[in-house]
Amino acid sequence: MRFFSDNAAAVCPEAMAAIATADGLDTAYDGDRLSRRLSEAFSELFGTEVAALWVATGTAANSLALAALCPPHGAIVCHRDAHIQNDECGAPEFYTHGAKLLLAEGPGAKLTPEAVTALLATVRDDVHQVQPAALSITNATEYGLVYTPEETAALGELCKAKGLGFHVDGARFANAAARIGCHPADLTWKAGVDALSFGFVKNGGMSAEALVFFRTELAAATLYRRKRAGHLLSKGRYMAAQILAMLDGDVWLRNARAANDAAARLAAAAGADRLVLPVEANEVFVRVSPGEAAALRAQGFDFYDWGPGEARLVTSWDSDGAAVDRLAAAIAAL
Amino acid sequence: MRFFSDNAAAVCPEAMAAIATADGLDTAYDGDRLSRRLSEAFSELFGTEVAALWVATGTAANSLALAALCPPHGAIVCHRDAHIQNDECGAPEFYTHGAKLLLAEGPGAKLTPEAVTALLATVRDDVHQVQPAALSITNATEYGLVYTPEETAALGELCKAKGLGFHVDGARFANAAARIGCHPADLTWKAGVDALSFGFVKNGGMSAEALVFFRTELAAATLYRRKRAGHLLSKGRYMAAQILAMLDGDVWLRNARAANDAAARLAAAAGADRLVLPVEANEVFVRVSPGEAAALRAQGFDFYDWGPGEARLVTSWDSDGAAVDRLAAAIAAL
Amino acid sequence: MRFFSDNAAAVCPEAMAAIATADGLDTAYDGDRLSRRLSEAFSELFGTEVAALWVATGTAANSLALAALCPPHGAIVCHRDAHIQNDECGAPEFYTHGAKLLLAEGPGAKLTPEAVTALLATVRDDVHQVQPAALSITNATEYGLVYTPEETAALGELCKAKGLGFHVDGARFANAAARIGCHPADLTWKAGVDALSFGFVKNGGMSAEALVFFRTELAAATLYRRKRAGHLLSKGRYMAAQILAMLDGDVWLRNARAANDAAARLAAAAGADRLVLPVEANEVFVRVSPGEAAALRAQGFDFYDWGPGEARLVTSWDSDGAAVDRLAAAIAAL
Amino acid sequence: MRFFSDNAAAVCPEAMAAIATADGLDTAYDGDRLSRRLSEAFSELFGTEVAALWVATGTAANSLALAALCPPHGAIVCHRDAHIQNDECGAPEFYTHGAKLLLAEGPGAKLTPEAVTALLATVRDDVHQVQPAALSITNATEYGLVYTPEETAALGELCKAKGLGFHVDGARFANAAARIGCHPADLTWKAGVDALSFGFVKNGGMSAEALVFFRTELAAATLYRRKRAGHLLSKGRYMAAQILAMLDGDVWLRNARAANDAAARLAAAAGADRLVLPVEANEVFVRVSPGEAAALRAQGFDFYDWGPGEARLVTSWDSDGAAVDRLAAAIAAL
Repeated sequence: MRFFSDNAAAVCPEAMAAIATADGLDTAYDGDRLSRRLSEAFSELFGTEVAALWVATGTAANSLALAALCPPHGAIVCHRDAHIQNDECGAPEFYTHGAKLLLAEGPGAKLTPEAVTALLATVRDDVHQVQPAALSITNATEYGLVYTPEETAALGELCKAKGLGFHVDGARFANAAARIGCHPADLTWKAGVDALSFGFVKNGGMSAEALVFFRTELAAATLYRRKRAGHLLSKGRYMAAQILAMLDGDVWLRNARAANDAAARLAAAAGADRLVLPVEANEVFVRVSPGEAAALRAQGFDFYDWGPGEARLVTSWDSDGAAVDRLAAAIAAL
Repeated sequence: MRFFSDNAAAVCPEAMAAIATADGLDTAYDGDRLSRRLSEAFSELFGTEVAALWVATGTAANSLALAALCPPHGAIVCHRDAHIQNDECGAPEFYTHGAKLLLAEGPGAKLTPEAVTALLATVRDDVHQVQPAALSITNATEYGLVYTPEETAALGELCKAKGLGFHVDGARFANAAARIGCHPADLTWKAGVDALSFGFVKNGGMSAEALVFFRTELAAATLYRRKRAGHLLSKGRYMAAQILAMLDGDVWLRNARAANDAAARLAAAAGADRLVLPVEANEVFVRVSPGEAAALRAQGFDFYDWGPGEARLVTSWDSDGAAVDRLAAAIAAL
Repeated sequence: MRFFSDNAAAVCPEAMAAIATADGLDTAYDGDRLSRRLSEAFSELFGTEVAALWVATGTAANSLALAALCPPHGAIVCHRDAHIQNDECGAPEFYTHGAKLLLAEGPGAKLTPEAVTALLATVRDDVHQVQPAALSITNATEYGLVYTPEETAALGELCKAKGLGFHVDGARFANAAARIGCHPADLTWKAGVDALSFGFVKNGGMSAEALVFFRTELAAATLYRRKRAGHLLSKGRYMAAQILAMLDGDVWLRNARAANDAAARLAAAAGADRLVLPVEANEVFVRVSPGEAAALRAQGFDFYDWGPGEARLVTSWDSDGAAVDRLAAAIAAL
Repeated sequence: MRFFSDNAAAVCPEAMAAIATADGLDTAYDGDRLSRRLSEAFSELFGTEVAALWVATGTAANSLALAALCPPHGAIVCHRDAHIQNDECGAPEFYTHGAKLLLAEGPGAKLTPEAVTALLATVRDDVHQVQPAALSITNATEYGLVYTPEETAALGELCKAKGLGFHVDGARFANAAARIGCHPADLTWKAGVDALSFGFVKNGGMSAEALVFFRTELAAATLYRRKRAGHLLSKGRYMAAQILAMLDGDVWLRNARAANDAAARLAAAAGADRLVLPVEANEVFVRVSPGEAAALRAQGFDFYDWGPGEARLVTSWDSDGAAVDRLAAAIAAL
């Protein structure tokens, strides 16, 4: 009974079926009929014209987005706990050719305009320091918190005022959108977002994420950067197929809701005292003593410790209902 | 009836089946049970201990290999017509942080020790010039020629004498091995090769290529470079599954033979006078006038022009027998 | 009466005279008779065999040293207030091709083994994070503190234990050595230092800093990196001349002592209550109200504010004695 | 009697005097009163508003210019024998983060619109190839030939038509301008040039070259790149002083004329049959047998062999008249 990462979940049937039916001779790279539908499909979803491309990982999506927004001699503001800072082995530095990440603070890996403003104030406006060129937030955050449209828009306004590009790492964008129930536009371009890494893999895809540019002119150079990074797959139709299948009929939302619901059940079972943070998406951070953690593991539950006395439980689109019930009961019984 | 690229071929049934059965909860990235079998499987195939990892494209495999062999202030010797020079949008320069490609000459994109030696002789041994650190050849070449074990070994000896790392771009390594019928070791480590980009996608895979290091110590830093490049997929088991399925029962060789055979039939139909180069793998370069090319296209055959008065016909593992027959007949009838 | 930076000081007579006498036809780059003496001169100074090369700036010296010690996918541990982090516009990231700086804490920009160990403990040993490869300290620090031989050696031992290269940014190494009065070896190779940026410009030079490798094998690739960075000046003899002239007869120590002495006089005048930090080299950080700062400026003293309620006063080899006396009196009179 | 490189010449008295008088306390970096005059001085010289900055080497000037004109995924067209290709250890690749140099042909390292057009025609307009973004020529060329204003303008028009930035490596721009006798504007902005590396070091300077942007908006990011490359010297006034002194009273032209005249005398002595190329600047390429070369060296003349049966003789602003006469006589007597 695995709760250690949504990365480990299975591929959802819709995506798998689309991969199978994508087979058959078509043009290579992203010239096929499926890949060519991607921008249109996301434009429809977001209700505005966007440029969208597939890549194989969220790391690549994030890094390509950041390279589009920040020069090598610039800086990217993000949270100290951001995935781009801690879990991508310096991919943003690689793709931007050495831009610097400036780290802001905030509970639950969530940034506020105040925190960003305070960080920006530490940078002198001279050639001896890299100048901030972009802000990157993660929604839902690495700690399972969700930015509302209003919170996102407040950051978007700050970006506009300061001349920063605005990127959202949406590895769990679906979980955020499902939680809030708003139109995806409200969490993105209407809130000033320039580029979104729209995650599908954690949510039931196999190997395709979408990089969505709301400033469509950013896509042109990105196509070269994607190829140059070895991310223009020969048989792109299998990439596009996954994404299109999960957009179709809002599978992406349905999957995310399932994961969020499972997390909510765990949270309810844990109770407020055990929760390190509110549970707003599909991650549950609970206070457990080493003995309690061992007891849970002895019952067959697999999860990561997350700092001393804390554990991270991650649910996914295919979290087994019975397993969730059993874990909920086990936590309640601690 | 498409003969423009083996990139456009379908996924072979063995790979597709393996993808389906790879499903189910397992560890993320390359910690899963399939990915962990990769080095062993290739060690068995090559008859020596190797370190193997999957990546999503040949461009990534090539660039990671070159980054392992050449410092930023070094140079890579390759053929003027090499894929790494002409078709990867500068990926080798990106991954090596700016190494220079030095271009040697030779018919059919094939290098000889003499050509490489002549090129090396133009480089002064001083800090004002980047110093050659690696040789990269393509087998089968971009023009469908094949390096024999002896030819490869001669280059390998030169590399050893000159202190160069030796990389083989094997996007069509299967076609070369199938053609020659030798043990894969004879085309690689026994011939002094340090790193091989072992192609599966053109040969029936979906999205996985293997990077095989015969100098296993090169893999350690490469694992970081792969992650840093966004090429460590979350659900790596779907990558490993394709490769393992195609190694199993020598599907990779059977597929390559099918492609080679189809090319041979086209070559026979074309006749020596029409052939620009001998047909040794799955690419056929034929002399056709613009009118003849138009006539073939009018009959439903799709292919690329390749310079004035020449066309490139590429066969693949799933080339339709009837279509090949029809094209052979059409060429013969020109 | 300027106290804002030792960067603004004049060129000392010995260096200027050496530049004049370096004139005359000689070989270009670093093949001339002066440049070829550099390694020998520093080997003599340090009492061990070193490889030394000139570069035009401390930023270049630091970045070349770090590039020699850290791969692109590695990390460099330094203080949050380090020059390499805050004042070089990302030069370390440029030269290392995107290595990450990990920031440790400590008063006065000074690091301890405990602080470094605590930072290292936050890094997971997996491919998702850049792995620490080097430690860089500044002696004297950006806040005018000095590492003793013992303190340096303790960090050197930690580096050895953790497999980190050890770099010292010695933009004010002369001031540190003059303060301590030890043999320069005790602050460098005997304490485990691998590479030293040995500053001359702040100390009376015109345009030459020395990069000294105590692990001489690091110099070979650095020569290529220096050329590649455009730092191999055509007429290198004018660079070497400055450095050799300042090594000769220990001008470098004499100059540093003069600067340190001037700072000590200011410190004594300020008194312990006004001093933000002990004054150990040629920088004095004093608590002054905005009104007091304005009063000093009205008397003709030029200096930088350094955070709210603080000012930085920097002395140099040529600090005018009368001006120092007047500033000392003015501070005492506040 | 050295004729191997103008890099080895002495510093001219005007530059040396300016260095001496630049001494004295002033602001650091490029904020001093001399550095701040640079753009104005070059604007006056060129008769249009330019942005000019000093750097320590021609390699840095060239690379910064190219980085301003070409993205990492772009390409720079230059001659196969260009200094940026052969003598800078990959500095353009370093500064541009891996752009590719595309090599065109032409006698005497000189490019024509036809040669450039032919090269451009080989590049496919798709993401698999780096797209040309800039043209770089050297005037005077590496083989001592000079582009006329008309020839330069023809290339400038091609650049405009093709959307390429236009850079001139003017390590010997003074020699070219002196030869032609035109206004410097005619060889630069009036001919469509965007950026000029204006050499002073070979022409009597000590350590300062000027990078002149005719599209002034290119300077802003370049200031960051210069700092980031470690090329923002602390005591910039000594850099600016050299350049301003050589602009003042057209010392730069006078020095170049002296070098050109000396070369012309050698050329006349050699006679047309011995000359490999016309002598238009300060480099003389002569056909000499190994025995003849040895004979010249036995008489005390120092120079480089330049391919089999050829030698390169370089004169400089301070070429000794008597030595030139003796070499001329010695060549004539061969």
